[in-house]
Amino acid sequence: MMDCLFCKIIAGEIPSTKVYENDKVYAFRDINPEAPVHVLIVPKEHIASANELTAENAGVIADVFLAAKEIAAREGIAEGGYRIVNNCGADGGQTVGHLHFHMLGGRSLAWPPG
Amino acid sequence: MMDCLFCKIIAGEIPSTKVYENDKVYAFRDINPEAPVHVLIVPKEHIASANELTAENAGVIADVFLAAKEIAAREGIAEGGYRIVNNCGADGGQTVGHLHFHMLGGRSLAWPPG
Repeated sequence: MMDCLFCKIIAGEIPSTKVYENDKVYAFRDINPEAPVHVLIVPKEHIASANELTAENAGVIADVFLAAKEIAAREGIAEGGYRIVNNCGADGGQTVGHLHFHMLGGRSLAWPPG
Repeated sequence: MMDCLFCKIIAGEIPSTKVYENDKVYAFRDINPEAPVHVLIVPKEHIASANELTAENAGVIADVFLAAKEIAAREGIAEGGYRIVNNCGADGGQTVGHLHFHMLGGRSLAWPPG
């Protein structure tokens, strides 16, 4: 996807502060952090949003959450806790058309979640 | 898990307003809704939190997100959008020790997510 910001970040064409990578998932720090730890976890496969998940491609969500667990341990927030958020569409607040998950931790997250 | 609120809801021992069910996932309306649509999507398997996911059990997260897509369509929020939230541990605001996902839609969700 030549016009996708996150595809370019995954490809290294746009710089990011990487915190984790494996063959399925890339994770980097949000440039506008809303918590002491605020990481974006992104499937490398271009999937536009949660609405585009199918039985064929949804397995990558498991990879995202296993990556989140590892990132939480590395960032020292596994025990204290964290929130993982996926925004889908306009009402969800999705601003980049490539499926991604926000992981926020290092402070007490309030309720409601937006 | 005899003492788990969500295991009891899944088993029908405690009433809930079910919106979706398959062999892996159960979904019902949050009793304290924070949006016009506020559904809890829960793996039937008792997993305490995202910190307890492993390569063996994490596949159910894909089932949760495929259920979310179906629920969004049924609830009429697929096009407008929605937010899916997982709280892990105290800082995340997790209040029930059974992995679950909040799906909120029907209004514009604010940022930050808590």
